[in-house]
Amino acid sequence: MTYKIGIDAGGTHTTAEAYDQNGNLLTKVETGQGNVNADYEEAMANIKDAIRQIQAELGPDCEKILAGIAGVSVTGEYAKISQELANTFNVPSKTITDSAIALYRALKGKDGILTIAGTGSVVNGLQNGHIIAVGGYGHLLGDEGSGYAISIAALKKALNTYDQGKTSPLTEMFTRHFNVNRMEDCNALVYRMDRPQIGKLALLVSSLANQGDSDAILVLEDQADLLAHDILMCLDRFTTPKPMDIAFTGSVLTKNEVVRKRVEADILAKYPDANFIISDGGNASGVLYDEATDYTRPLIK
Amino acid sequence: MTYKIGIDAGGTHTTAEAYDQNGNLLTKVETGQGNVNADYEEAMANIKDAIRQIQAELGPDCEKILAGIAGVSVTGEYAKISQELANTFNVPSKTITDSAIALYRALKGKDGILTIAGTGSVVNGLQNGHIIAVGGYGHLLGDEGSGYAISIAALKKALNTYDQGKTSPLTEMFTRHFNVNRMEDCNALVYRMDRPQIGKLALLVSSLANQGDSDAILVLEDQADLLAHDILMCLDRFTTPKPMDIAFTGSVLTKNEVVRKRVEADILAKYPDANFIISDGGNASGVLYDEATDYTRPLIK
Repeated sequence: MTYKIGIDAGGTHTTAEAYDQNGNLLTKVETGQGNVNADYEEAMANIKDAIRQIQAELGPDCEKILAGIAGVSVTGEYAKISQELANTFNVPSKTITDSAIALYRALKGKDGILTIAGTGSVVNGLQNGHIIAVGGYGHLLGDEGSGYAISIAALKKALNTYDQGKTSPLTEMFTRHFNVNRMEDCNALVYRMDRPQIGKLALLVSSLANQGDSDAILVLEDQADLLAHDILMCLDRFTTPKPMDIAFTGSVLTKNEVVRKRVEADILAKYPDANFIISDGGNASGVLYDEATDYTRPLIK
Repeated sequence: MTYKIGIDAGGTHTTAEAYDQNGNLLTKVETGQGNVNADYEEAMANIKDAIRQIQAELGPDCEKILAGIAGVSVTGEYAKISQELANTFNVPSKTITDSAIALYRALKGKDGILTIAGTGSVVNGLQNGHIIAVGGYGHLLGDEGSGYAISIAALKKALNTYDQGKTSPLTEMFTRHFNVNRMEDCNALVYRMDRPQIGKLALLVSSLANQGDSDAILVLEDQADLLAHDILMCLDRFTTPKPMDIAFTGSVLTKNEVVRKRVEADILAKYPDANFIISDGGNASGVLYDEATDYTRPLIK
């Protein structure tokens, strides 16, 4: 039986899924981190391990491998990785970013936009086979509307209140969370956290916003505006007729109603016929929607 | 001959100066980094080495040591370090932050504000012996108006232009500086730079602003507004009659006219009798202006 493999290789784990000709899921395996910019050797070992497990189960008749890999947009090693996979497994292979395979999956191969906002954020538009990327420049230079950006903006807002010699529900939330007496004392602790840990503080901000706190709501709305601005730039760059499907994925957009509703309102103000889709779950199935034939062939038969 | 020692212990080097009773500089020595948060043992070794060199030259009759030490506001080890210096050198000693000794020096012991904007930024106000600190929360959570913040804001502005599919003098400046073809390709290089290196990109932004580029001017003015906002918060917190001397130090405020003039204009709009002072050069002489007697005494005579 022939099958195709889709891979979603991200910063914490790699998911590989195999589908038959009718799009039925045959099997799914998960291995470790797959970000080739964080650790190329480790990521490639985890990606190959996932493919090997599937071949061991389903046999050699794999038709193609579409690998969506985190970090490849930074390293630029699309061709190198495609050739390495094609040669190792003797299967036509193609490497794209993890956000691109998520885009194929979210829009089922149709043109439109995928907006991801989790710990980081990025906007990817697809029109006539051409991808337009907006944002996604990482925690220092971008990631508007991400959990990380929300957390930092909320901490800055609370520090501003503290600098005025005042307290607020936001300062009280942070000092309680970090178990310190003064807002200022949160800082040293924040600088010792990694980015995903900082990003999770956004959950506290959301929870305070849901209780109606104006500072928390303002922080979320500001970040939503920045993210909507990125999506609008992508829509502006589409040629007419513009595709109007806009998919959202990532914890901030799928779980935070304040952010998603504000983003939707900002977009509808300029593009009233925009259509919003929520896409959560596995992106490896994006392989089902890539009709392109530009897969790298094995050098050794 | 009795003398007093002032120490300015910063992230790259430690300066110690000795003064006689009339405020004449007797000698000055420089050793390595003195940030106790970066490396406590190394910083203390460098600080002690500087004091030892001065005692070797001027003899044991040191009246007091005032140590302004970077990082101590994070670690909070004021008392511990004061006692350690007092015991080691058998001299009454006091530990404050490096920004506080800079404040004593800039205002010659008078009440007022010192604003530092170099790689980082912080605002310190002094009134009736009480210090009010605003900002200074580091590159992720603050440092408004610093060289680092200017560089990041300029990179974000250029990436925004790039995301619109356009170029500008700012994007051209960055791609030329990094010797890459696309604005996007600057990013991986920026993420490999350390904070002082990133902060130095602000010089390019200043130079473009001096040529009249509107994007570069906007970036500088935005950061100046944020820094002025911190200074205004400090002025707001003073009790009436408020001290009106505001000293500026650090490369951004002493060398960048666009930033300094904007900060001054913002402050004068609310406090028309503000008086601005430029303070550059050594801060160790702040020891001359500390009239307090709360120095930690040696435990061992």
